[in-house]
Amino acid sequence: MGVSGSGKTTIGKLLSLSTQFPFFDGDDYHPEANRAKMASGIPLDDNDREGWLQALNRLAATQLQSGSCIIACSALREKYRDILRKGLETQVYFVYLRGRYTQIMERLQARRGHFMPASLLTSQFDILEAPREAVIADIGNDPEHIVSDIMEQLKLQKEFGLIGLGVMGKSLCRNLAGKGFPIAMYNRHVPGKEEDIAVRFREEHPELQDSLAFDDLRAFTRSLQTPRKIMLMVPAGTPTDEILYELIPLLSENDTVIDGGNSHFTDTRRRSELLAAHHIHFIGCGVSGGEEGALNGPSLMPGGDPEAYKTVQPFLEAIAARDRNGAPCCTYIGPEGSGHFVKMVHNGIEYAEMELLAEIYLLFTRTGKNPDDIAGILEQWKMEENSFLLDITIDILRTRENGGWLIDSILDKAGNKGTGNWTAIAAARLGIPATMIVASLFARYISAFKEERIAMEALYGTRDSVPDIDENTVFRAYRAARLINHHQGFRLLREASEAYRWTLDLPELARIWTNGCIIRSDLMEQLPAILSTAHSLLAHPDIATRMKSWNPALARLVSAGVECGIPVPALGEAVQYFNGATASRGSANLIQAQRDYFGAHTYRRNDDGGTIVHHTAWKNTGNL
Amino acid sequence: MGVSGSGKTTIGKLLSLSTQFPFFDGDDYHPEANRAKMASGIPLDDNDREGWLQALNRLAATQLQSGSCIIACSALREKYRDILRKGLETQVYFVYLRGRYTQIMERLQARRGHFMPASLLTSQFDILEAPREAVIADIGNDPEHIVSDIMEQLKLQKEFGLIGLGVMGKSLCRNLAGKGFPIAMYNRHVPGKEEDIAVRFREEHPELQDSLAFDDLRAFTRSLQTPRKIMLMVPAGTPTDEILYELIPLLSENDTVIDGGNSHFTDTRRRSELLAAHHIHFIGCGVSGGEEGALNGPSLMPGGDPEAYKTVQPFLEAIAARDRNGAPCCTYIGPEGSGHFVKMVHNGIEYAEMELLAEIYLLFTRTGKNPDDIAGILEQWKMEENSFLLDITIDILRTRENGGWLIDSILDKAGNKGTGNWTAIAAARLGIPATMIVASLFARYISAFKEERIAMEALYGTRDSVPDIDENTVFRAYRAARLINHHQGFRLLREASEAYRWTLDLPELARIWTNGCIIRSDLMEQLPAILSTAHSLLAHPDIATRMKSWNPALARLVSAGVECGIPVPALGEAVQYFNGATASRGSANLIQAQRDYFGAHTYRRNDDGGTIVHHTAWKNTGNL
Repeated sequence: MGVSGSGKTTIGKLLSLSTQFPFFDGDDYHPEANRAKMASGIPLDDNDREGWLQALNRLAATQLQSGSCIIACSALREKYRDILRKGLETQVYFVYLRGRYTQIMERLQARRGHFMPASLLTSQFDILEAPREAVIADIGNDPEHIVSDIMEQLKLQKEFGLIGLGVMGKSLCRNLAGKGFPIAMYNRHVPGKEEDIAVRFREEHPELQDSLAFDDLRAFTRSLQTPRKIMLMVPAGTPTDEILYELIPLLSENDTVIDGGNSHFTDTRRRSELLAAHHIHFIGCGVSGGEEGALNGPSLMPGGDPEAYKTVQPFLEAIAARDRNGAPCCTYIGPEGSGHFVKMVHNGIEYAEMELLAEIYLLFTRTGKNPDDIAGILEQWKMEENSFLLDITIDILRTRENGGWLIDSILDKAGNKGTGNWTAIAAARLGIPATMIVASLFARYISAFKEERIAMEALYGTRDSVPDIDENTVFRAYRAARLINHHQGFRLLREASEAYRWTLDLPELARIWTNGCIIRSDLMEQLPAILSTAHSLLAHPDIATRMKSWNPALARLVSAGVECGIPVPALGEAVQYFNGATASRGSANLIQAQRDYFGAHTYRRNDDGGTIVHHTAWKNTGNL
Repeated sequence: MGVSGSGKTTIGKLLSLSTQFPFFDGDDYHPEANRAKMASGIPLDDNDREGWLQALNRLAATQLQSGSCIIACSALREKYRDILRKGLETQVYFVYLRGRYTQIMERLQARRGHFMPASLLTSQFDILEAPREAVIADIGNDPEHIVSDIMEQLKLQKEFGLIGLGVMGKSLCRNLAGKGFPIAMYNRHVPGKEEDIAVRFREEHPELQDSLAFDDLRAFTRSLQTPRKIMLMVPAGTPTDEILYELIPLLSENDTVIDGGNSHFTDTRRRSELLAAHHIHFIGCGVSGGEEGALNGPSLMPGGDPEAYKTVQPFLEAIAARDRNGAPCCTYIGPEGSGHFVKMVHNGIEYAEMELLAEIYLLFTRTGKNPDDIAGILEQWKMEENSFLLDITIDILRTRENGGWLIDSILDKAGNKGTGNWTAIAAARLGIPATMIVASLFARYISAFKEERIAMEALYGTRDSVPDIDENTVFRAYRAARLINHHQGFRLLREASEAYRWTLDLPELARIWTNGCIIRSDLMEQLPAILSTAHSLLAHPDIATRMKSWNPALARLVSAGVECGIPVPALGEAVQYFNGATASRGSANLIQAQRDYFGAHTYRRNDDGGTIVHHTAWKNTGNL
């Protein structure tokens, strides 16, 4: 409501975009006689108005049966408003666009083609009775602000926004809505490719009925309570930067943006600085659990400004998985970038866990076992060494099609989306030998050279000798290799924590990985306690007892694989690492001597405390 | 020579800095009577001058006995000059600083405290007889320019400059000078740490007597012919940037700077752009061979602008090692950064070659052999499989001290200077499984955790079982592993060549690595031919024949090491890679199924050409 020229149509339409209530212009419901009267400069009398207002009251009643609506109508007198809300008193809210006479006069004089001459404004102000109960909006503000303000007063704004409705984004939206949070969802509009994604998604899921769905980013941001809390679930890299550049001008100071994608931690640090320059908070949040985890409770790894984290903590903790004590699998990780770093290492560990299962599948296959046989063996293992990945592997191996097994028809070329690669690079940079992660990454790379492998097998011949292994040896080797993999992963986290001064809480990281995420397992359940008392997994006496018991099987399995020509690089790197890391004396003395010989790099001695640098003029016969 | 105020002292001193000839101010040799006369405004007569000029002639004669010198003297008349050069006619050169009367008058009027009043200038111009034969310098130019100009006319400038006199820089200087190139050498002055490095270095080596030695960068650049050719041999990273920032303002358009350090190839690209903005050429040049190679002939890998390369090619080719046909081990590698990339991969291959020898040393040690025994075995290998690294390893193993072997007293903590790390990262980025390089890098990392290893051995017990291996098995395994290492290294180069559009000539790279560099070997001698006819080492039938013969020994050796608890990660990765890369079917089908299961990443099939993307709604029982 408001006098002519107060902006009812403009504001009403914007409000409609952000609330997603349909908009009706009351003027469209005037009888022709009224319009003619106004155009000739004759003010309407109350008789003229009554039928019109009753029509609008009926319109409102009809709309309220299936939702809500926005109606623009001057509604200047209390008695007009009584007609409008008749029978709908508890459901109708008036929004009064309030302006001064001169303010509105200026606007009307600038407006062309409107059927009401500016001279009528005086009569409007004469009859205007300011409403006693209404949402009041000052028309001096800009329209964006007016709409946000109205939505806030009407409590129409949503508490949490989510951008990007891919597999993970959709699941998180359903998770949030299922927990009772009023959310706004946005997905971009790409003609012919991504159209009405958000609206159609909302329609498909009843739990989303109180959510708002947008493909207009501006309307989306208006629909959110300030300070806003917005989570991005868009692909890492350029798409994340693009949406941030688009979003920043629409945000306000103290809003918080959460990046839930698999961004590289250095990008997260950079973006954090970018947003800080606009006084916007940024939380880089690792999200693990895949589609199903995101829906029913992922493991969440948020890092960034601790104060900003507090504002989003209730949402993240509510949607996260629960550990066995019922605590959320979500914890504040540390400063900018640390959340995504931790998620990256999670994925690195995941790479090696997957590769171990793939190698074991291959070994068993070479002994003549079919996928069901193998699934049966793995099923036994669940009793002592269960994990999400073991569990799904059993499902996969048992999946049949056309009388055979689906796994036999899947192409053995593995893809990767970067995080394994990043973990390998981080390990190389930080000086931590995360050998199993790299072996697993490189195994995927080798798998990608399918055509080359076919040509190579033609040249080198097919090897089909059967490894002499029993199930128990394989199981023990698998358990030993998993210990090494987890040891290396947490060793890398510890080093990063020191190098970047993050003070990561390793037992707490293990705890939030006990549920929701891809590497949840029985072993992970034990790690919070183990990491609380030992510097590393292998340094813990319980782990030592297990490793001593299982390592011979690991060594035996690797030699069997190697001798039969079966690639088992992750198992192999597990035992190589164990042998290297538990030997007080290695062979690097020769490497130091070589470096000193050809490059005068100097060396240290083991008989003078290693504190003095030495150089030897080695016999100068180095020429071929 | 020149009238008072023409700048004889200023230019003379600068000339002295860049030529390193001592400077004498003729005025210091005036009898007191002459000085008094001039100060009272009375012009000197020729009687006054004769004794003075004879004194300067004696000064010149004395100096010429041990070198040369610069004397500032007005020498305005031909007969004065005759006295000055008397008996030294073929050795004395006059440099005439020529200026106009008004030009010099202005200067004199601006000058304070000089004993000759400006009024005497007229008489100087009156008696001035311009020399018939002299180097003429226009005093209107800036002093830097005047000095360079004089040096150029006197042919005192050097053809090539070298910055940074560490181990490698010094060796390259001696190499260049030994090939007859007149060079200028610069090392920074760091009080108390690096003082008179260049001057003392020149004094130590007779072949450097025609070189110039500087710790003043400006004097150094003046001493070089333009367009200048300057090679940097400073540590990679910040020191290289620092010297470039200092150097750029002292250079001229079309000068060429060669970076012979182990710079990262992306830094080289960046610096190339920086210098191009100043119209200065930049050649990133890999240099391998260590101290001894740099002295007697390194392998050189220059990359950058091909036109700029031509200007430095004669120098680089002259100092490079020779291949067996006498051609230089130096070739134009490709565009910006490619030279340093190739050098980086060279070092990666080197890492694995060193690690292989270290593992073999450890295996033999565990069978009870002493370093001399091992050297004796390796000595036999030289007949069929010699290499620089094998050769120096034998020297090292035989080096005794105090009745024992030096190798036994060297601390087994290996250092690294970054290039192995960079190669590992490049391989991870480019998707090439350079497994042996990474295994070797990580073996060094493990070696660095010496204290942790000691604690681990205490916890896990010492393993001392003796591997059952014979020398022939070890030799064959070593040969097989070397083939895999070289295969992976060249595979990485091929991929980089495609990814960065460098069109690297792989056979030519192998050729320049046949001598001078650390990885020169009998095997490398064969690679130019092999890489000319095959897509990769392993794809060549000759290599296939060898691998088939040697691989069983490699597998046996690795299993022996693994089962006896001896870390052999590079040997291990060799066989794992071979087994993976020559198998047409691997286990990545399971990984693809897992990725599709938890992340809906989709998969491809092996029965529809692999062109269609599939997704399966795997049984939804993935919860623990």
